[in-house]
Amino acid sequence: MTTTPETSQSEFLSRAEAIVGAQHVIGVDSQDGYLDPYPLQPGRAPWPGVRPGNTEEVQEIVKLANETGTPLWTFSKGKNLGYGGPEPRTRDMVALDLERMNRIIEVDDQLGYAVVEPGVTFFDLFDYIQERNLKVWLSVPALGWGSVLGNALDRGYGMTPYGDHAKQICGMTVVLPDGDLLKTGMGAMTGTDLGPIFQGGFGPTIDGLFTQSNLGVVTQIGIWLMPWPETYINGDIKVEREEDLPLLIDTLTQLRREDVIQNNALCGNVVRAVTMHGPRSHWYDGEGAIPEDRLEEIRHELGIGQWNAKFAIYGDHGLALRRLEIIKERFAGHDGIEIDARTYRGEDGVRIAYEDIADRDKTQMAGVPTLKPLSTINYLAEDGGHIDAAPILPARGEEVWAFYQDVKKLYAKHGFDLYIGYHLYPRHMVHVTMIYFENNNEEMLGRARELYTELLALARSKGYAPYRSHIDYMDRIAEGFDFNNHAMLRFQQQLKDAVDPQGIIAPGKQGVWPARFL
Amino acid sequence: MTTTPETSQSEFLSRAEAIVGAQHVIGVDSQDGYLDPYPLQPGRAPWPGVRPGNTEEVQEIVKLANETGTPLWTFSKGKNLGYGGPEPRTRDMVALDLERMNRIIEVDDQLGYAVVEPGVTFFDLFDYIQERNLKVWLSVPALGWGSVLGNALDRGYGMTPYGDHAKQICGMTVVLPDGDLLKTGMGAMTGTDLGPIFQGGFGPTIDGLFTQSNLGVVTQIGIWLMPWPETYINGDIKVEREEDLPLLIDTLTQLRREDVIQNNALCGNVVRAVTMHGPRSHWYDGEGAIPEDRLEEIRHELGIGQWNAKFAIYGDHGLALRRLEIIKERFAGHDGIEIDARTYRGEDGVRIAYEDIADRDKTQMAGVPTLKPLSTINYLAEDGGHIDAAPILPARGEEVWAFYQDVKKLYAKHGFDLYIGYHLYPRHMVHVTMIYFENNNEEMLGRARELYTELLALARSKGYAPYRSHIDYMDRIAEGFDFNNHAMLRFQQQLKDAVDPQGIIAPGKQGVWPARFL
Repeated sequence: MTTTPETSQSEFLSRAEAIVGAQHVIGVDSQDGYLDPYPLQPGRAPWPGVRPGNTEEVQEIVKLANETGTPLWTFSKGKNLGYGGPEPRTRDMVALDLERMNRIIEVDDQLGYAVVEPGVTFFDLFDYIQERNLKVWLSVPALGWGSVLGNALDRGYGMTPYGDHAKQICGMTVVLPDGDLLKTGMGAMTGTDLGPIFQGGFGPTIDGLFTQSNLGVVTQIGIWLMPWPETYINGDIKVEREEDLPLLIDTLTQLRREDVIQNNALCGNVVRAVTMHGPRSHWYDGEGAIPEDRLEEIRHELGIGQWNAKFAIYGDHGLALRRLEIIKERFAGHDGIEIDARTYRGEDGVRIAYEDIADRDKTQMAGVPTLKPLSTINYLAEDGGHIDAAPILPARGEEVWAFYQDVKKLYAKHGFDLYIGYHLYPRHMVHVTMIYFENNNEEMLGRARELYTELLALARSKGYAPYRSHIDYMDRIAEGFDFNNHAMLRFQQQLKDAVDPQGIIAPGKQGVWPARFL
Repeated sequence: MTTTPETSQSEFLSRAEAIVGAQHVIGVDSQDGYLDPYPLQPGRAPWPGVRPGNTEEVQEIVKLANETGTPLWTFSKGKNLGYGGPEPRTRDMVALDLERMNRIIEVDDQLGYAVVEPGVTFFDLFDYIQERNLKVWLSVPALGWGSVLGNALDRGYGMTPYGDHAKQICGMTVVLPDGDLLKTGMGAMTGTDLGPIFQGGFGPTIDGLFTQSNLGVVTQIGIWLMPWPETYINGDIKVEREEDLPLLIDTLTQLRREDVIQNNALCGNVVRAVTMHGPRSHWYDGEGAIPEDRLEEIRHELGIGQWNAKFAIYGDHGLALRRLEIIKERFAGHDGIEIDARTYRGEDGVRIAYEDIADRDKTQMAGVPTLKPLSTINYLAEDGGHIDAAPILPARGEEVWAFYQDVKKLYAKHGFDLYIGYHLYPRHMVHVTMIYFENNNEEMLGRARELYTELLALARSKGYAPYRSHIDYMDRIAEGFDFNNHAMLRFQQQLKDAVDPQGIIAPGKQGVWPARFL
């Protein structure tokens, strides 16, 4: 694997000052350098970067990177926690930090879309909408400080009907690896309003190429927003018996396929609830994973189920009430399953008051950005970190149950509590588990890495793969896509070398390396 | 522009016999050659083709095409009527006709998907589902004899909640231009069930590249199907006043954004109704477009509105009734707007009887394939043809109204009746108009071509472009995507040359020409 000579990097950083200004170049030894806050491999030093202020500066920076042979690692806010944060694949890259580009270009609350730059966070967009009383709701991920654009490009999820964020992208502005500028979809025409309105264009659709990608630097996207609902219901399903998981999954996903439940429902276990009432030491201070009998005690103390699902309903009041009724009908007659729901109704022309929706799990389903889940990071230690281990599975209850049994054994074997927060979609589910650890605790990190590696292998043996990846595992996961001698990766690399012959943009992102690094 | 020497084409056809069998090679002078049934430029001769029976044969054919330098023009059933049917961009190509590959690999009515080959028609898939009493509904385009796969790849539409067919594609098998084989999405892993279940994969998403595309030959797709509904309602909205169009569009698309109306509603004018009660001579035999006062008389004879919209509702009976109520509430108090609706309900575990849903416009919204609209082709002449002129517009009533006024003048100027069948989506609409003509009537065809060209220019001046294209106008429409010196087309051509350096697959499709043809 080629590395960039230090001289080239220092030449790049020094010449970049003329493009973005010296104050926006973070040098190799700067205190402001970039770092993953929860590294799986500790001991990394901060690394340097540049912060362009607009698309033209990005173009200039990319051209300079080509001239000096300096690979760039792009991110919007670098808040991809549990996946490496701002960290690059190799240490010779320079951060292309887009957070200064933070303009909200437009929000249209009749047709329901926003146009934003990479530095716009979920908080920013939420505040913008509230200040103007616009008639739209956001979809937000667990933490609101991340980039709307960055999250969508990494194919992240929120928890409203618009929760599959990549699917809401409508029109992109992209700086190509040679510094050229491209607009996708209808925006590829001058003088059109259709960019953020219609997702298709003419000829092959290329938008997907720029998700989880190193084929360009996206500096603007259109993203669709949902109309604010008259009524919002959030519901909890408490399931007493562990073995009712298949029933729960099959019923909830059938309701989702029928569009009775309109968002991706969430299904958590007892450990998940414990992390929200942490730290762990408050509940258990023994070695290894919390034993089942202690978890059962905690469960009763917290008054929760073995499984605790959450769903939401949005829209017309009459429709919302009937939806809730159907959900109750489907679970009726099953012992040990309880449904509880709260209804919030807006007045005529006035939105539902977010402050009435108290619980943070509920506000997330209402598209309200928050930082509250951040506290769970201290579950195991005051200086805590985590990695997300989240393969995609078919939404088939018995199959999920079988995988869950195996995962439970793996976590116990490595002495970790099994945190589960499943996300349920119409046809698939994301088997979200988390591994919490103490930062820089090498013994614990070693176990975490082993567990994660074994979990990936187990998933792959069943034909499952994660929907996104920590930077340390991108090659391994890409390796699992092995049909016809890795035809997919070979094709992705062919595209990479065609549009980025110098291998400048984010080499190794999702396992796609340019030829010069191979 | 390079052309293929005749010797190379004849060498290709002769060597192809060893791959697909002599009976599946259609020679240059064969009676079975391919032709557009409604050519805009008459006088074309049938052209030759090959019909592989499986993916391996497609791979061999593509390799042979590379060896002999023979460009191929791919289609599934060739029923892309109004867009050129099976016709290629240039006459030196050979048809790669995929209709023999007609296996339905799988239909899963729990998770709701099918896996099909290119030769599977909407009729085939419908029959398969009915024979097995599977609990899913199809989404079908106007005519049921076309290919499910081909229609989705050309980004065609149906009229159910799953009517945006390209968005239902989940996993593709693709023969690349060098004959290599690729599976997209999760199917890029061996030993997985996730191919038709989860639309993402790992790294850049490439599926969009193979829609409206010449970057590969798709030999299999997964496509999502909707669960059969307990209740189906089809509704008509009759609007007496022409100038209520903006109100109609804004209200229907708002209802669609709120997911009250669940499908793409249709909005037709009087001429559209006349074509279904044709031929035209039955109603009017003067020169030029039917005058407004005669249309007004016909309208009263047919008992219809100036605008006649259709919508449908699907699902739980209680939800369906409330949805209808909301629609009626929204239009209440507007003089000259009438809503009529019929409700069909399935018995417990028994599907709604399609035979109860009599009118063909209604069965299309219920996903029942038909050939009835084919009769409208004889509107102007016993040997009639048509071209679809269908730009995308923002779903903003006043803007649509302004464009409609201009289009009306254009049609009158060229002596054609303005047929309108708008398709309404949440944020955009397809401004579907049709130009009917008599085949081989050069005077009429000349006017049709002029009208179509002027319509394209008018649309482009407003920032609108068609969502798909007749082969004769692909270059012209691509030309309109002019941002940054046609950055989009330049990028598409860069991809084309990277994956198809010999320029073998469908040169010129959607205006994307390989370098060797430029």
